[in-house]
Amino acid sequence: MIVVLRSRAVDYTNDRAIYNSMLKGDRTRQTILERAVAMAAVTGIEGVSIGGLARDVGLSKSGLFAHFGSKERLQIGILEATVERFVAEVIRPARRVSAGLPRLRALFANWLIWAAQADARGGCIFVSSAVEYDDRPGPVRDYLAWSQRSWLEILARAVERAVEVGHFRPGVDAEQFAHDLYAIELGFHHARRLLHDPKAETRARYAFDALVDRARAPS
Amino acid sequence: MIVVLRSRAVDYTNDRAIYNSMLKGDRTRQTILERAVAMAAVTGIEGVSIGGLARDVGLSKSGLFAHFGSKERLQIGILEATVERFVAEVIRPARRVSAGLPRLRALFANWLIWAAQADARGGCIFVSSAVEYDDRPGPVRDYLAWSQRSWLEILARAVERAVEVGHFRPGVDAEQFAHDLYAIELGFHHARRLLHDPKAETRARYAFDALVDRARAPS
Repeated sequence: MIVVLRSRAVDYTNDRAIYNSMLKGDRTRQTILERAVAMAAVTGIEGVSIGGLARDVGLSKSGLFAHFGSKERLQIGILEATVERFVAEVIRPARRVSAGLPRLRALFANWLIWAAQADARGGCIFVSSAVEYDDRPGPVRDYLAWSQRSWLEILARAVERAVEVGHFRPGVDAEQFAHDLYAIELGFHHARRLLHDPKAETRARYAFDALVDRARAPS
Repeated sequence: MIVVLRSRAVDYTNDRAIYNSMLKGDRTRQTILERAVAMAAVTGIEGVSIGGLARDVGLSKSGLFAHFGSKERLQIGILEATVERFVAEVIRPARRVSAGLPRLRALFANWLIWAAQADARGGCIFVSSAVEYDDRPGPVRDYLAWSQRSWLEILARAVERAVEVGHFRPGVDAEQFAHDLYAIELGFHHARRLLHDPKAETRARYAFDALVDRARAPS
């Protein structure tokens, strides 16, 4: 599943020079992206100012552009870097957990931690950029929507595996489950960040347990 | 319940001149607000430019400020106007439906229509401003969070009524139900607007039915 999220990310950087610089693990590019991700979490991706970013990392604007080619590439770069982090923190650790319900629980638990940690960074970029880009056609939106669809597919696959190993009953609608899980996470993010609801996490866990109960195989 | 949403809104406009102008139903103020709400749906509330707004309604910047007193008041005005519209389109019509599950269904159905109609206007302002303001302390955020908490309370009250009239079993956690319903709506908004999922509405309705089933009194 990680391969899915990776391979497409590369499609978006099909300029050879930029691609090579990525492969070589260009440190400056990494530094720029880390700063850009931190700025984007606070201001939104559209709010990342090239001037401010260049100043921050000690480059001229044209020096900064040399690493990305365009503002759009930089914006996609911000999302790609966040996807990589999401894969490393949420998806990959769950692969070490046995397939079925335990792995699904791990994915959910890691995702909650992800969203909670995002708090300190200004919120989850996927949530904020969804609102930012849902009305802005173009490659940034396309990449964002593609990444979230891929994540939903990964969740749906994990649900199908839970059916295969007998934790869930046959006939569970895996895509509906994935959709519902995504909604639970959005509700958690909203309750925690806007409403400062001290029960936000408890509520999200309760909703997850209810979702799992509905899907469970009769014992 | 409408009174709850109204009275607090007035608290935020405790400047007498502005309050009086509201009471008189000042047409210019209404025109400004309608334009501002339309702009905010596309650009976000922070993105509403005073200059652009003044030009649009044929006023000078200072002429526009005379109606609001500050940019912050204008921003709260945008939210207040949206709350009023929400009350008129989502909450009030549901009061004519009999209490209990039918009213809860009506609230949910009206809310779905609200979110779907918001599509044409650039998305639901409550959803986009939640992301915009969750990290920006101040009166705009306070008003927004208060309005959404009030809406959750109204939903929770409707759930309690469903228990009282025997549609739901005693012991249903009304606040959890309201939280879950809010998450379903956020999931719908996301699936429809970012993912262009043709099943977004079907999925939201399915999730709602599952939520209701869990709360139902045994027949």
